[in-house]
Amino acid sequence: MKAKVILLERRPQGTPTESDFRFTETEIAAPAEGEILLKALYVSVDPYMRGRMSEAKSYVPPYQLHKPIEGGVVAQVVESRHEKFPEGSVVVGNLPWQDYCLSNGNGLSKADPNLAPLGYYLGVLGMPGLTAYFGLLDIGRPKEGETVVVSGAAGAVGMVVGQIAKLKGCRVVGIAGTDDKVRYLKDKLGFDAAINYKTAASIRKALAEACPNGVDVYFDNVGGPITDAVYSLINNFARISVCGQIAYYNATELPVGPRVESRLLIHRALLQGFIVTDYAPRFGEGIKALAGWVKEGKIKYEDTVTEGFENIPRAFLGLFKGENTGKQLVKVAEYKG
Amino acid sequence: MKAKVILLERRPQGTPTESDFRFTETEIAAPAEGEILLKALYVSVDPYMRGRMSEAKSYVPPYQLHKPIEGGVVAQVVESRHEKFPEGSVVVGNLPWQDYCLSNGNGLSKADPNLAPLGYYLGVLGMPGLTAYFGLLDIGRPKEGETVVVSGAAGAVGMVVGQIAKLKGCRVVGIAGTDDKVRYLKDKLGFDAAINYKTAASIRKALAEACPNGVDVYFDNVGGPITDAVYSLINNFARISVCGQIAYYNATELPVGPRVESRLLIHRALLQGFIVTDYAPRFGEGIKALAGWVKEGKIKYEDTVTEGFENIPRAFLGLFKGENTGKQLVKVAEYKG
Repeated sequence: MKAKVILLERRPQGTPTESDFRFTETEIAAPAEGEILLKALYVSVDPYMRGRMSEAKSYVPPYQLHKPIEGGVVAQVVESRHEKFPEGSVVVGNLPWQDYCLSNGNGLSKADPNLAPLGYYLGVLGMPGLTAYFGLLDIGRPKEGETVVVSGAAGAVGMVVGQIAKLKGCRVVGIAGTDDKVRYLKDKLGFDAAINYKTAASIRKALAEACPNGVDVYFDNVGGPITDAVYSLINNFARISVCGQIAYYNATELPVGPRVESRLLIHRALLQGFIVTDYAPRFGEGIKALAGWVKEGKIKYEDTVTEGFENIPRAFLGLFKGENTGKQLVKVAEYKG
Repeated sequence: MKAKVILLERRPQGTPTESDFRFTETEIAAPAEGEILLKALYVSVDPYMRGRMSEAKSYVPPYQLHKPIEGGVVAQVVESRHEKFPEGSVVVGNLPWQDYCLSNGNGLSKADPNLAPLGYYLGVLGMPGLTAYFGLLDIGRPKEGETVVVSGAAGAVGMVVGQIAKLKGCRVVGIAGTDDKVRYLKDKLGFDAAINYKTAASIRKALAEACPNGVDVYFDNVGGPITDAVYSLINNFARISVCGQIAYYNATELPVGPRVESRLLIHRALLQGFIVTDYAPRFGEGIKALAGWVKEGKIKYEDTVTEGFENIPRAFLGLFKGENTGKQLVKVAEYKG
């Protein structure tokens, strides 16, 4: 059979465009012994993928030119010659941007459609949720009564960070880029304050008002001038968890900015980068905690779902325009229970 | 009696000059009950003092204008009405830049002239040694076989950092500013490699050659382009201990440079500032370890001693010209045993 596939046509220069991708078809054989044929249901688009589109070595290898892009996908088994994954079961894992694909099951885990909406397995119960969980609790180590600031607060990671921090008894301040997002953070997710960095006359002043006791923990998804403003308010022994730097993912030159070391020194502060997959041995712990909080209604969750395989590149490009609230997914097909 | 004293005459703009200081005399009464009259033997001049000469709030309060500068001093008790400090005993503590002064003993500790040369109590057995000990072992956490880079390597802190790292089985690379210092680090202190940043054609290239396996721990005393070069070579899970930023102590504008966050993220690296006094509850542990290593000859130690009370400001200014190897002291008077 033929499957639709999206290839990396060329390496983006600066901000990616639709012409960096190419739609084509690929021939798929029937599953051999030990293989499964998968039908994609939900495809995840994530900011980190921008890094893999460049040639530069990073913590994940670059995508190859003229090969399928790959990333987080929820898929249903439509034909199985693999004991562990019977026909009709649902899996989540790193898979190519294809409507159908073959897999030997390596690296896939099962997703239970009765436990949570299937898209959650790419969000609060997937990499974004785990990123929030470990980055906040292991590096940020928030203590009751402290002030936690999160940038990219209405994103898939940020909204979970803020809610976990609330569960820990912190004052939580979110930074986001639209008034709708700001309202959502305050009214729906219980953030103590939220700032629209695009409309604030001075982001530093707005932050100072929102953080009368300074900043003890900063969960940084964005970098750039927003981060500079937060740094100016850190308290002694502050912890800064560097999760993402979306401000620079499309940068073509080495970004410069205020040097941070003197400030870290004066405040005895910690700045640490992390990558969620380093916590793989503890994913079970994280998923259990997150699933519990979601079930008890202590963590609310939302995703932005775009429909249609043909819209995957466009949904990816939207990430850099701040279009999504929460996790951005593309729904490719309906789950058949 | 009259004592000589050095006042802060004005707050330095940029690099301090001799005219920022003023020599004068002050009247000292005879010690009251519970007081001691101290004669200064050794006065410490340290880069961090530059910060206290500015008005800006930092981790130690600014010096007051037209008041004595103060800092680490080894002094001998010449008259005592204090049980704990009999006449003839030697103390170390934070004292004014005076040839004689009164004290009630608060914050002073005793120094044993038989255990180590008295200047050591301002160096390897004092704040610089403790700074090296805690900054390297608590934040850097070097493991056997790792590569440790230290900047300001021939300074009071740096030379101890490098030798402790050698004791821990690391490859140790020092960065310093003269060929004499480089030779000293390699030939006398056992550093595996040392680089003269002033003569190296490319500091980055010289470092890459000296660190064929990358950099696991960086103990940063300087900041600036040297630090940028080290950052370019860090390994995954590197630890950077920010101890000093002498490159900026005289800066009149906020320094800018390459942003570090993306690199910290890619390498899951840690950058942490610290101040030795935060470790005060553990000073006993540090001094015991350092004194043991010095006694066993495992840590070699050197200081640069300038003679004469009148040369204290000049010795301080020399710190910013890289004049000293090891701890810079001023000998004010002879110990009388």
